[in-house]
Amino acid sequence: MDKSKKISTAVIRRLPKYYRYLGELSKIGISRTSSKELSDMTGFTASQIRQDLNNFGGFGQQGFGYDVSNLRNEIGKILGLDRKYKIIIVGAGNIGQAIANYTGFYEEGYDVVALFDKNPKLIGLSIRDKTIQDIDDLDDFLELNEVNIAVLCTPKSVSQKIADKLIKGGIKAIWNFAPTDIKLPKDIVLENVHLNESLFALTYYYKNKIIND
Amino acid sequence: MDKSKKISTAVIRRLPKYYRYLGELSKIGISRTSSKELSDMTGFTASQIRQDLNNFGGFGQQGFGYDVSNLRNEIGKILGLDRKYKIIIVGAGNIGQAIANYTGFYEEGYDVVALFDKNPKLIGLSIRDKTIQDIDDLDDFLELNEVNIAVLCTPKSVSQKIADKLIKGGIKAIWNFAPTDIKLPKDIVLENVHLNESLFALTYYYKNKIIND
Repeated sequence: MDKSKKISTAVIRRLPKYYRYLGELSKIGISRTSSKELSDMTGFTASQIRQDLNNFGGFGQQGFGYDVSNLRNEIGKILGLDRKYKIIIVGAGNIGQAIANYTGFYEEGYDVVALFDKNPKLIGLSIRDKTIQDIDDLDDFLELNEVNIAVLCTPKSVSQKIADKLIKGGIKAIWNFAPTDIKLPKDIVLENVHLNESLFALTYYYKNKIIND
Repeated sequence: MDKSKKISTAVIRRLPKYYRYLGELSKIGISRTSSKELSDMTGFTASQIRQDLNNFGGFGQQGFGYDVSNLRNEIGKILGLDRKYKIIIVGAGNIGQAIANYTGFYEEGYDVVALFDKNPKLIGLSIRDKTIQDIDDLDDFLELNEVNIAVLCTPKSVSQKIADKLIKGGIKAIWNFAPTDIKLPKDIVLENVHLNESLFALTYYYKNKIIND
């Protein structure tokens, strides 16, 4: 991979889809595929797919298509899935617990090493063998343990404060589920999952395409 | 609003953000705002914001900015948030329960009217006063009740089958959390929340910006 080349966000967003579909092909025993077949699966055009994969040096052979498991491994490497990541979940309410319980992440090498909350009713409960810890112990935990990614599932009223705490503790990547935007230094990586916004967009299309028809 | 005009997906995706920020301004008692202030809050440029709002006829007055609560109401109307929506959740595991428990949706007029699962351990449990029903009763439920939106939180192995069932039962809008793409007739509205893909994108940026630095 040519590191000097800047890969666009749109390409990065498509790579996980290729990765997932290649996994599905692999599971049903298919070992070779084509940009045409990937196009049928993903809905992206075949030329778009070839162009995307060319960003990283190609992988395909004219007339032979792609080796499914090789291509999946290569995309996995590009995404960084060829190593393990230690995750903490801050805010162990509904969403936080759902994420801790989601087995799909464990399969891909993500390991939830701790959960934190300030609610005394939650502190001490176990989620998949991890005890929910007091949020007051977060600083100490971060000092003593390596953590790669923090999942932020707090109410929005405290999310900025907690995010600041995480950064201070050395966290460089935040996956934010709090329904608000948080301001972070430029060297921190942030990915938002704003469920409300997703539901509102669905509602817009529902109202305009279906109800108004 | 000029109905003949096609609004781009990018604009539709930004509207919920404006709606959210205007709500936050409203809550702290601010009654007027400007595209400049909204720009500072959202990270979009002021000209982008003015252009977006012009799609729907403007709302602002040169030199006076926007009336916060009026603009929020108008955007809410565009999004379709000026009415109620009945939601069912199919697949009442971690994610399904988390969504049923998420109060943010209730505040905006979304009402979870039923949950369904096939797991006997879950059937009969109550989530926010709604009993989880047997998935086998889904068809009858859809025949007897008006439902606007179905939230699909099943394992991916059954998501297409369940989606087909929902469509057959008259559902026109699906919010899909199953980590797979489902194929639907063109007249159905679909919004995917693929958590894995979001985490993989975060991982890519983490690996490339932070680890490789």
